[in-house]
Amino acid sequence: MANSKFEYVRLFEQPDALLPNTWIVVRLDGRAFTKMCAKYKFTKPNDRRALDLMNAAAKAVVSDLPEITIAYGVSDEYSFVFHKTCNLFERRASKLVSTVVSTFTANYVYYWATCFPDTPLSFPLPTFDGRAVCYPSVENLRDYLSWRQVDCHINNLYNTTFWALVQLGGLENKDAEKALAGTVASDKNEMLFSRFQINYNNEPEMFRKGSVVFRDYELVDPESHQVAEDMDSLAEPARQSKTQTEKDRRRRSKARLVVEHLDIIKDDFWDRRPWILSNKPGLAPKEP
Amino acid sequence: MANSKFEYVRLFEQPDALLPNTWIVVRLDGRAFTKMCAKYKFTKPNDRRALDLMNAAAKAVVSDLPEITIAYGVSDEYSFVFHKTCNLFERRASKLVSTVVSTFTANYVYYWATCFPDTPLSFPLPTFDGRAVCYPSVENLRDYLSWRQVDCHINNLYNTTFWALVQLGGLENKDAEKALAGTVASDKNEMLFSRFQINYNNEPEMFRKGSVVFRDYELVDPESHQVAEDMDSLAEPARQSKTQTEKDRRRRSKARLVVEHLDIIKDDFWDRRPWILSNKPGLAPKEP
Amino acid sequence: MANSKFEYVRLFEQPDALLPNTWIVVRLDGRAFTKMCAKYKFTKPNDRRALDLMNAAAKAVVSDLPEITIAYGVSDEYSFVFHKTCNLFERRASKLVSTVVSTFTANYVYYWATCFPDTPLSFPLPTFDGRAVCYPSVENLRDYLSWRQVDCHINNLYNTTFWALVQLGGLENKDAEKALAGTVASDKNEMLFSRFQINYNNEPEMFRKGSVVFRDYELVDPESHQVAEDMDSLAEPARQSKTQTEKDRRRRSKARLVVEHLDIIKDDFWDRRPWILSNKPGLAPKEP
Amino acid sequence: MANSKFEYVRLFEQPDALLPNTWIVVRLDGRAFTKMCAKYKFTKPNDRRALDLMNAAAKAVVSDLPEITIAYGVSDEYSFVFHKTCNLFERRASKLVSTVVSTFTANYVYYWATCFPDTPLSFPLPTFDGRAVCYPSVENLRDYLSWRQVDCHINNLYNTTFWALVQLGGLENKDAEKALAGTVASDKNEMLFSRFQINYNNEPEMFRKGSVVFRDYELVDPESHQVAEDMDSLAEPARQSKTQTEKDRRRRSKARLVVEHLDIIKDDFWDRRPWILSNKPGLAPKEP
Repeated sequence: MANSKFEYVRLFEQPDALLPNTWIVVRLDGRAFTKMCAKYKFTKPNDRRALDLMNAAAKAVVSDLPEITIAYGVSDEYSFVFHKTCNLFERRASKLVSTVVSTFTANYVYYWATCFPDTPLSFPLPTFDGRAVCYPSVENLRDYLSWRQVDCHINNLYNTTFWALVQLGGLENKDAEKALAGTVASDKNEMLFSRFQINYNNEPEMFRKGSVVFRDYELVDPESHQVAEDMDSLAEPARQSKTQTEKDRRRRSKARLVVEHLDIIKDDFWDRRPWILSNKPGLAPKEP
Repeated sequence: MANSKFEYVRLFEQPDALLPNTWIVVRLDGRAFTKMCAKYKFTKPNDRRALDLMNAAAKAVVSDLPEITIAYGVSDEYSFVFHKTCNLFERRASKLVSTVVSTFTANYVYYWATCFPDTPLSFPLPTFDGRAVCYPSVENLRDYLSWRQVDCHINNLYNTTFWALVQLGGLENKDAEKALAGTVASDKNEMLFSRFQINYNNEPEMFRKGSVVFRDYELVDPESHQVAEDMDSLAEPARQSKTQTEKDRRRRSKARLVVEHLDIIKDDFWDRRPWILSNKPGLAPKEP
Repeated sequence: MANSKFEYVRLFEQPDALLPNTWIVVRLDGRAFTKMCAKYKFTKPNDRRALDLMNAAAKAVVSDLPEITIAYGVSDEYSFVFHKTCNLFERRASKLVSTVVSTFTANYVYYWATCFPDTPLSFPLPTFDGRAVCYPSVENLRDYLSWRQVDCHINNLYNTTFWALVQLGGLENKDAEKALAGTVASDKNEMLFSRFQINYNNEPEMFRKGSVVFRDYELVDPESHQVAEDMDSLAEPARQSKTQTEKDRRRRSKARLVVEHLDIIKDDFWDRRPWILSNKPGLAPKEP
Repeated sequence: MANSKFEYVRLFEQPDALLPNTWIVVRLDGRAFTKMCAKYKFTKPNDRRALDLMNAAAKAVVSDLPEITIAYGVSDEYSFVFHKTCNLFERRASKLVSTVVSTFTANYVYYWATCFPDTPLSFPLPTFDGRAVCYPSVENLRDYLSWRQVDCHINNLYNTTFWALVQLGGLENKDAEKALAGTVASDKNEMLFSRFQINYNNEPEMFRKGSVVFRDYELVDPESHQVAEDMDSLAEPARQSKTQTEKDRRRRSKARLVVEHLDIIKDDFWDRRPWILSNKPGLAPKEP
């Protein structure tokens, strides 16, 4: 039996392949997480269990999709970076976004019981939405990640001070808001220290810097190459055979994934880990 | 602290709003479900537990997003139809697709233990990808749904016969394939009946017709209106106030959702349920 | 000699086909026409030679592209409507827009000497930019055209009064502006009549209504069909053979093109000319 | 009078801004130029008047749009490169394409009488279609231009030999085709030389290399900078004030435009003219 009479409807599907040779960032955000936080009584300003759960889900995504070279998460959002040479799903935006979001969500729900053993999930379940953005140059890509990490810093300093005022200082929410209106970073640092003896720099790095997921190879001595100068050529891998590409992909998929809380704005992070931009597997890390 | 130095990266995000006044279909498909079927030993040709799980997840999606007017599922795929007047997420494709896929996935993982109480999930978890397609007219939309239901019929008749040959007839897979090569529908019906005493029309409707999710209101007598003629004007709701629109949305979100296994190709299904195309809530169904 | 080393750059070209089964409007606008008007001393508020030139160029476009079913122009803009079934250039936006703009521009420059025999062109030459927009329903399409014609009316009434105040009333431009600030249509009509004995309704129809380009067939008695009801089905032509489609295309390309100045907001225009929405050639017009 | 009832139709216009920080190439092609060549009896294999006309029109485009940094033409096609920092028309594809095509067409029709003084234009007039493509890196952009120039070489060698066989050798078209089937470049060179005493390398450079339009500044000694290494950083202009950008734009718009016939595949062309990729005006050229 032919299906031809109705099959014309396939022609309405419009192509959405992303521009070749650009870095693809898929960012996902929790939907209605303010309500979620209240419903499940997440600790303020940061709930370590909730962040651990985000990180576990993100690690599963990077593990399932070796084309992802780095991921960065903060609060209820996570950004996944596909290397600019990536050709997964022929770079179709909807396939990339939906696959990342679906894998993240599946793992988030699955790991919930591990991170919140005493708090069963209830309806509506936690969900995420996502979008894809292309960045043509390494500079643009690093600026994107810097933008997210600066945002993490700004929000976390604010929230840490706000909740200190409320939880330790006994202020009402709206009074804490007023107390913070117009303050700059140094004011908040000062407020935390003088009123509550909190040194912001001693706060956990996970809260202050967010979380970075990447493959763990042996660090490279930044002195050994002209890192800043080499950035773009690093990202331009030598043309190689399909066999080699497939071999690299397999090596990447076997590499150990780590979640760390590092500064990714400064050059040092990138200089020591050239494989992130080059997408070429590094050396196995030395045993400790 | 200003975040301006890096914030320019937001300009790289490209708009993806779908054309107004068109029906939006978001279809999702299971990723690598052939492997899934083998891993979890799904019954062939149809696993009722797996279909029940798909339907439970789909019902949760339609319940969470009252802008969806109907959904249709078969095998490991599901199509969700947003009414052409829908303005959810300003009709942004990536938000619509990712929200549907995320909600579906969350519920699929959540309900797994209910449908497969003896088979715990293992990695990689089940995931789905999705895409959005716009259809300008009611005719195009119905042809899309007909296309999926015809596909369901073709595949299910083939699979039913194939697995009868293998499971009841003792054929090897490749011999069953050969036996079916070049056959038409009537040949398969005949094969099922003469060799295995199976009357295909007695197979469960869920397998033969797929599953339709919609809101349950009192059926309308198709004689009472010129249904075929009214189709397009039905879909053109009178302009109404925001209050009325919001009131309708709430009424829809409270309506009882049903999952049925009906013919959605013929007019009758649509004639009796004008609220699906009009997006205007119907009357509460009569108590039985 | 193979060209393969560089040929990969073709992959960067991104598809831009417009959604099937929607009306395509290509609108073009004169670039920097305020300067043009000053340079070539166009008559204010309307220069008949300049409008004749626009119309001649538009007629050439409709003649060269029989897929265009109607065009509407006012001032330095023109809108060309491709029937929703049109498949010219596989509906690629850039091809449609650039072809319309190029054909219009070529004819505008070519006919310049005819319309402005005493004013040779000088650099920079007159140019136009364009864009394509899709409309899913007949209602949307007619609303688009009504929008342009209402705009024509609003602007022309304003300009007619403004230039009467300046040219006949001796006001400075900025004083005329002030005199018109806050006035409604009836105020301007009154101003024209009481101060300058101008009855706006006696102004030329070309200025008040803009110009409509279409193929001229025998008018249809609106009583003979349920026009309002039939609008959408009219636009849904019966499926027909390629031969028939090609025959229709040739008949359209031979039909006489007219430029008229009619109300295209009310139903009457459309009721009498069903071929515009149906894209089916009408009967040859009766000889006068 | 408000225009609000119909104005909603503006919402159907979909944004088409091209990805920031990418090189934009607008390529236009003559429509139905095979017919044109026959109608106006263009000389085969190259008509110098027709190429001069293409070049005059291209020069006018580059002159009108100082955001174009280089243009390359061959036969009836021309490619215009907008610098990757260009923000003209907010990078909207339809505006960029239509403006280039319209300006080119206007000048082509205008200059026709100069280049073909004895051959008046007739209907249908010559027209062009166009499209925009983005290239993220300098390497991609140069590969695009190399692709076009290699194409020029391949086609011109073929055409030169083909028409020598026909015009000088007395062959029928189809016999010349057969004679060339399966030949490589060296075969054609040999054929030209041994049969017709034509040394292909002595053919005019305009025919063999196509035409390059760019601004003429003082050439730079390629020894003076690490050209290959600097390519990408060259293209990354220092952030500068709006005043400076505007000043640069004005200087560019005053620079002398030249049309030359050079090899743009090798590095030398680019090394000596760093302003093309940097978009920073060079020094005024030394007087000869």
